[in-house]
Amino acid sequence: MTALEALEAPLLRFEEALSELVQSDVLFLRLIHQDLVTAGGKRIRPRLVFLASRALGGAPFELELALAVELLHSATLLHDDLIDDAETRRGKEAAFRRYGNAVSVLSGDFLLSRLLHTLARTGRMELVERFAQVAKTLSEGEVLQFQVAALEDYSLANYERIITAKTAVLMELCTEGPALLRREAPEVRAALARFGLLYGQAFQMRDDYLDLMGTPEALGKPVGGDVREGKATLITLLLMERFPEVREVLRRRGREPGDLEWLRQLARESGVAQEVEARIRERAWQAVEALEPLPQTPYKEALKALALKEAERLA
Amino acid sequence: MTALEALEAPLLRFEEALSELVQSDVLFLRLIHQDLVTAGGKRIRPRLVFLASRALGGAPFELELALAVELLHSATLLHDDLIDDAETRRGKEAAFRRYGNAVSVLSGDFLLSRLLHTLARTGRMELVERFAQVAKTLSEGEVLQFQVAALEDYSLANYERIITAKTAVLMELCTEGPALLRREAPEVRAALARFGLLYGQAFQMRDDYLDLMGTPEALGKPVGGDVREGKATLITLLLMERFPEVREVLRRRGREPGDLEWLRQLARESGVAQEVEARIRERAWQAVEALEPLPQTPYKEALKALALKEAERLA
Repeated sequence: MTALEALEAPLLRFEEALSELVQSDVLFLRLIHQDLVTAGGKRIRPRLVFLASRALGGAPFELELALAVELLHSATLLHDDLIDDAETRRGKEAAFRRYGNAVSVLSGDFLLSRLLHTLARTGRMELVERFAQVAKTLSEGEVLQFQVAALEDYSLANYERIITAKTAVLMELCTEGPALLRREAPEVRAALARFGLLYGQAFQMRDDYLDLMGTPEALGKPVGGDVREGKATLITLLLMERFPEVREVLRRRGREPGDLEWLRQLARESGVAQEVEARIRERAWQAVEALEPLPQTPYKEALKALALKEAERLA
Repeated sequence: MTALEALEAPLLRFEEALSELVQSDVLFLRLIHQDLVTAGGKRIRPRLVFLASRALGGAPFELELALAVELLHSATLLHDDLIDDAETRRGKEAAFRRYGNAVSVLSGDFLLSRLLHTLARTGRMELVERFAQVAKTLSEGEVLQFQVAALEDYSLANYERIITAKTAVLMELCTEGPALLRREAPEVRAALARFGLLYGQAFQMRDDYLDLMGTPEALGKPVGGDVREGKATLITLLLMERFPEVREVLRRRGREPGDLEWLRQLARESGVAQEVEARIRERAWQAVEALEPLPQTPYKEALKALALKEAERLA
């Protein structure tokens, strides 16, 4: 059995447990959760949990950990992606959509309450405290991202802090969690934590790269979403250092015709796109190297493969 | 020293601890929390905690419990009161306000992460589980309120469920919590839980009554907010039973000139306003009676007085 085949059973149990956890007798909650939670997602975070757990020979409460990280992730999605209320009202949406933002936010809170319940079920207070740290960092990172866009406070340091806070620390908990639950030796726990953190950074760097340089077909959405929200990513930051006009494009949220195509072309022709790809590859390899202290298993190899995929992922 | 004087010291410690808990090096979070958390509120929930704790002779972790209930309450305020994004953008608001809803919601999440940290500090898993239940019920109640307004699914049963879920269960935890932390006998814990629940219902009934029947001067805001959001409360529900036109007023969100004044007058002249006041008084007295099993102390009397105030509160 390969490592990926071995994940099928726990992922199936995960889907069943998740569906059960988000049950409610309130209709609108059922509708939202059908839509946004139970219907989808690549379950990257639960996969990380199960692989890390198995790389150690299995951890107690791995299912609860997988549920908890996915609940926190899903709640964050419901909370940071608010849509324009006026736009929603104009559309012909289902009733629960017309009450859109407030109901989405509250349904994210419902998920957080189920996260609390799931953590309580483990009886492990140090896990509760780790989730408290991660949730704090995560919300700070999300707010910082808005703040940086509002104040045009663009810097590589802010970029690193944002991708670490809003993505990498949760992935760090995914892979560190099983070691914590097994009460592993500090060096094993640190190795898995470091892998998750570096993998998470590479993952977000890749997402940000594709947001500008990907194809709408592969992404299933228009490119340039970050530019339109005034969010500087590694690629626009490196471009800005060499071409000051890029700051102006970001300031006007890429609204002029041709702005996005100009950025894409500039990135390719200046070599900045290749530079960003190289940095992602480097981060992914650092993640791979972090796993050194772990015993050789197919699960360790699967974690490595997951990280290296970030060097080439197209969607 | 009276019971209220005895609260001064713990409430002061509470304010200090709260300010410290919501510290962040992210500017926008500091601005929002200055505005909405540290600057205000009547601290009704922490008061309930301290009074209930003292009525039992003092409970371990009473400060943590007071912080936790207030953090949950404040996060809910930040999450259920989303404003129209378009309106915000037109106004001349501070930068963090222009990023209004998303930043407010995420800053509520920051508070929830501090709640998790505070709960972890107590080391008491049964408290974590009780918060999980309350948070679940709370978010379900908030969503149900939107759903009932959207589907015009008005009934007294739905009203009771909404006020219980969105207000009373948290107040129940405020007064039950100290008994839980002290590991009191079940009848003492049940008595305090019942008091908090009934008090919370009376409190929300009073708030809803004042929303229509209060004066803008005392309330510091225009009356009729609930009608404008299509939310039926006890007073409009009882009116609807006798005057079917009231449903129409609610459906059009009280938008016609004179709608609100007509409702107010109808409530007074039909005796429905007096009927609602009588029901609030009854609920407050039930809360008082629930305290019977507790020993006679000034703190028990202070809790009773708090409940009876709901029969006459004007703001």
